Parts: sequence; structure tokens; C-alpha cells
Amino acid sequence: MLEYLKTKEEREDFINKYDNFLFDCDGVLWEGNNMFGGVAESMKLLREKGKRICFVTNNSTKSRVAYLKKFEGLGIKAEMGEVFSSAFATATYLKNVLKFPADKKAYFIGMKGIKEELALEGISSCGGEDDIGVFENELVPDDQEVGAVIVGLDTHVNYRKYAKAFAYLTRNPGCYFLLTNEDSTFPQHGSFYPGAGAIAAPLITALNRRPDAVLGKPALNMLEAILAEYKIDPSKTVMIGDRLNTDIEFGLNGGIDTLCVLTGVTTKDELLSEDNKVKSTYYIDSFGDFSKN
Amino acid sequence: MLEYLKTKEEREDFINKYDNFLFDCDGVLWEGNNMFGGVAESMKLLREKGKRICFVTNNSTKSRVAYLKKFEGLGIKAEMGEVFSSAFATATYLKNVLKFPADKKAYFIGMKGIKEELALEGISSCGGEDDIGVFENELVPDDQEVGAVIVGLDTHVNYRKYAKAFAYLTRNPGCYFLLTNEDSTFPQHGSFYPGAGAIAAPLITALNRRPDAVLGKPALNMLEAILAEYKIDPSKTVMIGDRLNTDIEFGLNGGIDTLCVLTGVTTKDELLSEDNKVKSTYYIDSFGDFSKN
Repeated sequence: MLEYLKTKEEREDFINKYDNFLFDCDGVLWEGNNMFGGVAESMKLLREKGKRICFVTNNSTKSRVAYLKKFEGLGIKAEMGEVFSSAFATATYLKNVLKFPADKKAYFIGMKGIKEELALEGISSCGGEDDIGVFENELVPDDQEVGAVIVGLDTHVNYRKYAKAFAYLTRNPGCYFLLTNEDSTFPQHGSFYPGAGAIAAPLITALNRRPDAVLGKPALNMLEAILAEYKIDPSKTVMIGDRLNTDIEFGLNGGIDTLCVLTGVTTKDELLSEDNKVKSTYYIDSFGDFSKN
Repeated sequence: MLEYLKTKEEREDFINKYDNFLFDCDGVLWEGNNMFGGVAESMKLLREKGKRICFVTNNSTKSRVAYLKKFEGLGIKAEMGEVFSSAFATATYLKNVLKFPADKKAYFIGMKGIKEELALEGISSCGGEDDIGVFENELVPDDQEVGAVIVGLDTHVNYRKYAKAFAYLTRNPGCYFLLTNEDSTFPQHGSFYPGAGAIAAPLITALNRRPDAVLGKPALNMLEAILAEYKIDPSKTVMIGDRLNTDIEFGLNGGIDTLCVLTGVTTKDELLSEDNKVKSTYYIDSFGDFSKN
């Protein structure tokens, strides 16, 4: 545990040990729109060695298609099948695990990413950007077609959305309640802002009910979906991330090895602190270091 | 416990036993804008007998002044000093218990009631209706003048308000976090909607911190403030309400007697159920019954 990948040899041994590399993106590959030094070269190295790569993100605001555009803009080669976002995971979970009926629709609190991933799975949706506008204490009408309420990060969330989501979850028998991910905050502008877990909290409180499923890291069902999707061996798989309570815990929950990078949220002091209970298998200063001599 | 006030004699004995009558309003005196039958006459009876009356409400959206207008409109005599709302309780708590500095201001998520009660205590405020508008992921600027964040029911709540409240509570050292009341829902249009406790949940989740104080029923500090304000004897005081988990628990928490009316949220079956752990001292079908022969 907490083995430091210091020498070129240690880094090469690490790469040779695994076939499948799961990546968190923000804080590992880039920060905002700035890619970290050496990332493109390190990624190229993995590709040359024929490694399987999967980008695992809790960001539900972008669809996988929009994510690919970001990769493209930063000059990183990636394919849609390599991106595993919490919005995609939620849509596939609703369709394949919960067998969501074709005559029902999903109401969502969230951004475009959720709407687009639901559409790709053939699931009708309502809510999101359509529910902008001040709530004037009006009656929320019944809509028995709503068979699921999905909550993700929504920086346009408002009382109207909460009132509607709460109404569907209390009035519609068997209505599913799904959360794309449970991050309580997310980093932005050098500060933190309330995350998807915070956005969902009013419903959890008012309903006195937990979601039926939480996707996103560190939830085990996200990893299970990835292992099943790619049919990969967990013992040959490593998760690379910067956040202890999402990325590293995700690996620990699923029994796969982990590599913590220090380019994001977690500092070396926090990682090595005796108080830290979430210890990665390895750590390295930056993912870009894999391209160093 | 759970003594039913069935006969006129029992009802007269009840009135004679107490000097101070604390009332919940909605579900006891009225529903929406409709006063229950016999309420005006029963209230008049208490006044004639020289009883002290106090209206205790968790509704923070209206100021006491606005409450008095509602009483007036329904033909019930009341004075400002007889109304004890969660917004008033929060303002006085901030001023008198926390000794809020005169050069600080309070940021609030809530409606007019909070703003008006803070102003009456001489406390500057910002937020509320000023923070309408879609949040476009902009930076939340620092405002070190904010020394308290107050959260109450706000049917206009949006992400902008959460982002600002969260920023002040994480960036401003010693910034207080107060909740007017913790009701998870409130009744409206014959249904339930997310309440103040739900509205505050994103901050509690994102901060991983409980409020410094919760006012409103069933919190003990609300009752302590009432007993201190009016200098009344708890053994001669009774709380009359319709909700077990607010009104009746409020009395139980503070060691005063309680009367549950069946004109509101609680049904007779719920009250008398073996599963019910929150038992009122007395119960009656309607407060209006006190005027019956």
C-alpha cells in the first residue's frame, strides 16, 4: 500500500502489471481546460502498449459525445466506448438493470448530459432546462407517466424542480429514485460548490428515503457495470484518480488496485497522513510522469 | 396521557387548569384561508377568562405584521406581542443569544418574513428575493461582511443561493449557520411540498455540518425563548397543535402539557395508534369545540 512510483523502472513495472487503466479525468488529465504536462505522451505510451483505457467520470452534466469533444480539443485520442460517465451509467442502469418500461418517462434534475444519455438509450425524459422559472406556489399537476426521478448536478436547480420531483416520487407508485453520483461538492474557480449529492439532499430529506441506486464513484454498481461492459479481469485493472473519497474508495470498494495522483484535490500530506483510512495501492506526483525518463 | 375532552365539564376543567395557551395556527385555527367553525368563539372565551395567548408558528415566510393581517382578515383579535414565528425567533436568537455584531450582515435563503424580522432587530440582510436569476457557473465573490447564513422555507430557492450560502459558510471564519425550522415538508393544495428542513439539506450535506441552531418547533430553544419572553410558568402552560412531530413533540421536549386537535395533519387513528410514541396530554376533535354546549 502507498507505494511511491519514483523510478522509471517502478513506473514501467506498474504499466506492465495491468491490462486495463480506468481514469478519473479532472485533476488527473486536466484542470479545467488546461492539460497537465506529459499527459498526452503518457497516454500515447499506454496506447502503444495495447492497454485498454476507460475514462470514468462523475460529471453528469456532459454527455459522452460532449466529453469526446473536450478530449479532441485537448489533443487526446479517445472513443465513445472508452468514456464511462455517471449520466451514461444511470441511463444504462435504468434501462438494463431496472428494465424501465417503454411507456414511462424519466423526470430529471440535471443538465444536458443526462437528457442526451437517456435519449441514446431510448428513454423519454422531461424536466431539466424546461423547468426554469420562478415557482409561484402553484399546484404541481399529476403526471403518472413519470416512472423515474433522476438527480444529478444541476446548477440551474430551483424549487419548481424539487416540488415536481417530490410530487412524482410521492404520488406515482413504484417511481424509481436514482442519483447519478453522490459528490457533496465539486471544484470550480479555485473553490468548491455544492455537488450532486447536495442537490439531491432536499428530496432525501423530504421523502425520508434514500435513492434506489446511486451511480458514480465510489458506488460499486458503477465498477460492476464497467467490468461487465468490457468483460475485463479486475486483477488486471487499476483505477487512477486524485480524490480519495471517490476515485480511490471506488477501487477499494470493488477490490481493484489504485493509483493516486497528486495533481488534483488530494495533497501528499493528506494521502500519507495517519488519519487517512483510504489508502491507494500506489501514488505518483503526476500521471504525466509516466512519460519521463 | 391522551385524555379525550369529551364533555363540556372536561373542557371547562381544561381551560381552568392553565393560564397560558400556546397555539399552532395552520390546522388548528384555520386551513389555508378558511377558519374552522367555533374557533372565533373559543378564542373569545379564553380572552374573557383573561388567559394569555401566544401563536407559535414555524412559518417563516410571513413576518408577524403580515400574520396579524391574516388574523384580522379572519376576524380574530391578536396583537403583535402574541405572535411568535420562527423568523422572529431566529432574528432574536441571532441578536440576543449570539450577540450578532452590528457591522455584520446576514445572508438569507427565505422569503420576506425573515428579512422583515431581521430589520426589526436592526440586522442588515442580503439574499432572498435579490438572488433570483439563473446561475451561469460564475464565480461567487467573497463578502466578508456576511456573518451569518439563515435558511428558511424559500419556494424561490435556486442554485445561486446555495452557491453563495456555501461560499460564505466555508470562507468566512465564524460565520453562523441558522435554520428557522426543520419541517421536512409543508402542506399545500391538499398535498405536501418540500419544507425548510429540505431546503437546508444541500448546505448541511455540502458542508458536512449541522446548523449552529435550529429554531421553530419542536426545538427547545423556541420554547425557552417564549417562556423567557413572557415570564410564564411552564406548569400553567399548554401547547395546542395538530402535528405530532412538531407541536406535540415541542411540548414534550419542553415538559409542558399538550392538546392535540384532529382538524389538521394528525388523524385520530394515528394519534391513538400503539406505534405512536408522541402522545399528547389531551386531545379534542376541534379547537372550536370549546365553544360548544
